[in-house]
Amino acid sequence: MNTEKDINIPKMLETLRKTRPIIHHITNYVTVNDCANVTLAIGAAPVMAHAKEEVAEMTSISSALVLNIGTLDPAQIESMLISGKTANEKNIPVILDPCGAGATTLRTESAKKLIKDLKITIIKGNASEIATLADIDAETHGVESGAINTTPEHAARILAEKTGATIIITGKEDIITDKTTTITIRGGSPMTGKITGGGCMAASITASFASIEKDPLIAGTAALTCFNVAQQLAEKKSTGPMDYRKNLIDELYNLTPEKIKDHQNYEKTRYS
Amino acid sequence: MNTEKDINIPKMLETLRKTRPIIHHITNYVTVNDCANVTLAIGAAPVMAHAKEEVAEMTSISSALVLNIGTLDPAQIESMLISGKTANEKNIPVILDPCGAGATTLRTESAKKLIKDLKITIIKGNASEIATLADIDAETHGVESGAINTTPEHAARILAEKTGATIIITGKEDIITDKTTTITIRGGSPMTGKITGGGCMAASITASFASIEKDPLIAGTAALTCFNVAQQLAEKKSTGPMDYRKNLIDELYNLTPEKIKDHQNYEKTRYS
Amino acid sequence: MNTEKDINIPKMLETLRKTRPIIHHITNYVTVNDCANVTLAIGAAPVMAHAKEEVAEMTSISSALVLNIGTLDPAQIESMLISGKTANEKNIPVILDPCGAGATTLRTESAKKLIKDLKITIIKGNASEIATLADIDAETHGVESGAINTTPEHAARILAEKTGATIIITGKEDIITDKTTTITIRGGSPMTGKITGGGCMAASITASFASIEKDPLIAGTAALTCFNVAQQLAEKKSTGPMDYRKNLIDELYNLTPEKIKDHQNYEKTRYS
Repeated sequence: MNTEKDINIPKMLETLRKTRPIIHHITNYVTVNDCANVTLAIGAAPVMAHAKEEVAEMTSISSALVLNIGTLDPAQIESMLISGKTANEKNIPVILDPCGAGATTLRTESAKKLIKDLKITIIKGNASEIATLADIDAETHGVESGAINTTPEHAARILAEKTGATIIITGKEDIITDKTTTITIRGGSPMTGKITGGGCMAASITASFASIEKDPLIAGTAALTCFNVAQQLAEKKSTGPMDYRKNLIDELYNLTPEKIKDHQNYEKTRYS
Repeated sequence: MNTEKDINIPKMLETLRKTRPIIHHITNYVTVNDCANVTLAIGAAPVMAHAKEEVAEMTSISSALVLNIGTLDPAQIESMLISGKTANEKNIPVILDPCGAGATTLRTESAKKLIKDLKITIIKGNASEIATLADIDAETHGVESGAINTTPEHAARILAEKTGATIIITGKEDIITDKTTTITIRGGSPMTGKITGGGCMAASITASFASIEKDPLIAGTAALTCFNVAQQLAEKKSTGPMDYRKNLIDELYNLTPEKIKDHQNYEKTRYS
Repeated sequence: MNTEKDINIPKMLETLRKTRPIIHHITNYVTVNDCANVTLAIGAAPVMAHAKEEVAEMTSISSALVLNIGTLDPAQIESMLISGKTANEKNIPVILDPCGAGATTLRTESAKKLIKDLKITIIKGNASEIATLADIDAETHGVESGAINTTPEHAARILAEKTGATIIITGKEDIITDKTTTITIRGGSPMTGKITGGGCMAASITASFASIEKDPLIAGTAALTCFNVAQQLAEKKSTGPMDYRKNLIDELYNLTPEKIKDHQNYEKTRYS
């Protein structure tokens, strides 16, 4: 990534919609329907499969893999490792959502095992999940973010350095960072915190862009920009959280280059 | 089935709503909520149960059984076989949705095993799923239909001959066929392809009608007609895919004899 | 509980929204998304976790536990027992939704085992589920209520005496009873029976209030009153069941002291 001009989000969205890449999800049963619909809305083709007997084959016909531990169990983690290894062999990007890391030992240890055994392209979490994985003190509130013992950006950079992955922290401001550059993405809506699945949707959209753009920093910036623009547009017309969820996914479906240009709002910091 | 006059869809819908038959689903966790709500909307009573310890008992108190392999695993297939055998013994219609057949070996082989070991009443899929099961070359795109090496109608007839089941292919036009007759049902909306679960909903509605009508060709025609009419009505008032899903299920709930008569659109071909 | 003045529902709702207690659910995959969103809408923080390796830890950071057997299997029941024991040790209230008890042996026996092995705070079911657990003859219609061989109130009181739990029966009128007092809560909407998940939502809301109010009779009355008020408000503006579900959860989110006072409608009977 050289200059901001390189991030032509409308063009990436056009490519995504023309290509309709398959996005394989191994994810939780709480928000899986939202993940499927948001993946369709942004222009990709979701597929969900968890059986260890088929996940390698399903991943191998896919263009990105989402691993979300929101309702994990050991059998599911085993399937994630099988899929992840297939994805790594075939250079298919892997997006990890360490949902609830820090809340229980199983979640923290499973997320760490996935990071250790696989080459993860992007880790997307809230501040306390990312801090937990970076071994920084953090409180969690179930699957919601709590206080952390540093700034979100610092936690993200520590984890990026540790793992080689690009790190996304969603929150009031979204942060995306690799070892050398951090992009801060503004916009969005506090209503996203009033529904379940906002973070899971962000992972599905990120995976969709990562499937057609090799630079994770650019893919993530495009994904979060689109998601934030849709959030802003949805908030304006919504009367409650369920109305907002409906409008949010529909605004993603109805995104145009003009809407993106009117609302996109990010800035870049580069480290030497 | 003798003449088109035999298919009195409004009367069948009335019977369905009076009877409130229980429809047992063993299905995927992605669209299961939509399946439950669509079953209620058309007038039946959904029940979801997958544990091998209870599926036979649950099937035996039901009036139709839906088997959908959208997020299969070997334990689920085992339960499907148990339920299917109970259904066969008790002459309860079995509707199979071979979701993703062709995408992975597990899906193709599991669907074929269900067809081999059970007497399936209706198999409902997209063109490439049906072609795969008919051993015709087909491409799949995850759980979406791809190109097939013949016409959908031909694939459906081959599979009907092979299995004795009535075959439904949903798509731009819906096709329903047994060995001697094919009915083509027009209408519907391209918006159904923009949400997850359209095909699954079609299976639930088909099972609901099959529970009160012995001829699968008539039951399927009624189901797909109702679903297509609701799609057309929903499309007109919808601003995006999630708004469309809401309106689609609500239009099914609000279906009247008049709306059905205004929109129903099918034609029959009989083979000698 | 002394007088009706003791039940200050707006104040309890305020406390709930300030505290944002974590509500751990081990529940079915059909309505789990609705349960999560309704828990958020009323002001609490849902978490779903089922793996036996983590449920005790997740329960121990939670303020209430919901056990819903809507899509049970033996492994899930095992996790429920682990979580329930942790909850009992830590005085965390346990809300049981014996979804489908009476429909199959597995459901009836599993619900009875949970009641026998755990100290359940509140059992919430429909009339035939509660009657089944009270060993009163009852018909079930899948997971819907059927005829029972007594009044709902009598069935609830029998089960309360048997188990020591507070019993809620939802229906046209909601009943909540312990050994000495019964409260009847009116309002609500018949539209709740047209969607899947109405009962599950009632359990999540009840658990949310039980997490901040020690008296189960008061917590349940507050929960059902809020739910009934939201139902009445939602019904007025809804054009079908899916529109109603959206409006129902949004009305819970938008509940105010004024709306509660305008609509709350319950009466108390005390037994000597």
